[in-house]
Amino acid sequence: MTDVNTTADAPRSPGRPRSARADEAIIEATLDLLAEGSTIEALSIEAIAARAGVGKATIYRRWAGKETLLLDALRRLKGVAAQPAGQSVRDDLVLLVGAVGHNVDPRAARIMPCLLPEVNRSPDHFHLYQNIIEPRRKLMRDVLRRGVATGELRADLDIEVAMALLTGPMLIQRLLRWHPELDDRILPEKIVDGVLTGLRAR
Amino acid sequence: MTDVNTTADAPRSPGRPRSARADEAIIEATLDLLAEGSTIEALSIEAIAARAGVGKATIYRRWAGKETLLLDALRRLKGVAAQPAGQSVRDDLVLLVGAVGHNVDPRAARIMPCLLPEVNRSPDHFHLYQNIIEPRRKLMRDVLRRGVATGELRADLDIEVAMALLTGPMLIQRLLRWHPELDDRILPEKIVDGVLTGLRAR
Repeated sequence: MTDVNTTADAPRSPGRPRSARADEAIIEATLDLLAEGSTIEALSIEAIAARAGVGKATIYRRWAGKETLLLDALRRLKGVAAQPAGQSVRDDLVLLVGAVGHNVDPRAARIMPCLLPEVNRSPDHFHLYQNIIEPRRKLMRDVLRRGVATGELRADLDIEVAMALLTGPMLIQRLLRWHPELDDRILPEKIVDGVLTGLRAR
Repeated sequence: MTDVNTTADAPRSPGRPRSARADEAIIEATLDLLAEGSTIEALSIEAIAARAGVGKATIYRRWAGKETLLLDALRRLKGVAAQPAGQSVRDDLVLLVGAVGHNVDPRAARIMPCLLPEVNRSPDHFHLYQNIIEPRRKLMRDVLRRGVATGELRADLDIEVAMALLTGPMLIQRLLRWHPELDDRILPEKIVDGVLTGLRAR
């Protein structure tokens, strides 16, 4: 499914700017509809086209279908991933924990909490997860493995549990504002130092 | 606002069972509407009454308004709070972490992730949070304070950050299935032992 000819569509102009404006309008329409509470399931190419003021054919010329369009739209929410410096494991973790749940677009606060459970419930949407979330997880996993290799972290570290310990506190704060009294700006350091050191007295 | 007389309502029967059935239908209708994607804002007594097959007056006889009805409905999702035994701090934390994000009603998986951001955005809904979430947090806070007092936990422990470290990993798993590869049943122990011990080599 790469094109449809059933919908009336404005004639294509040759220049790039016009097409870039249409792409932008389509991405924006997708994010607006999701932010207004549409589920992925309910989101249709028809509705996106109507909202963006373009024909369906314009969408299908650029994206093979809803899933690839969603992928581009959701990537837009997250912006560019932070890159660890590779010196101190602690500092790299502070950087990556600070990026957890960080979105450059304010619509993310309405879209992401409702969307994640839907993505996780449906095997069809799993590639959304794989393409957007997994590359960011890999960055953190690599830092933890380096810490184990250099002896900074425990040799018997369960990497996946360690990822959950570092990610969870920041994510509930960013997605759910779980602890309204905690200051987001110093929270990444507090989380990393707390998890590295542990709560137990010695 | 405790009663309205504008809506046609079936005559009241004297027995308790009939009224209990209506209460049940009203709570169920509220949870169904939320699970189908209604925001708290959009949820109306009219819609709940229509769904439950009762008149609005029946609802207003039992609940002062939408907020108190919501409170009862959301409490139903969570069930009764786990009570720590008060012996081992570690075991009490495993119990409480295991209860984080645990809901007895499967509709919670659709309701809670979308609802929490809405509650947090609106000061009007803050008492929902205060009434449902805060009593459960207090249980964990008390265990952590006890651990500091007995010397099991670090004397300089930041209690609120410690709560976030213990709660976050479990909550993202329960609400968002953040780490599909982790086993929920052993996760509470892994989280508590990981956070108590810390990741750093010594």
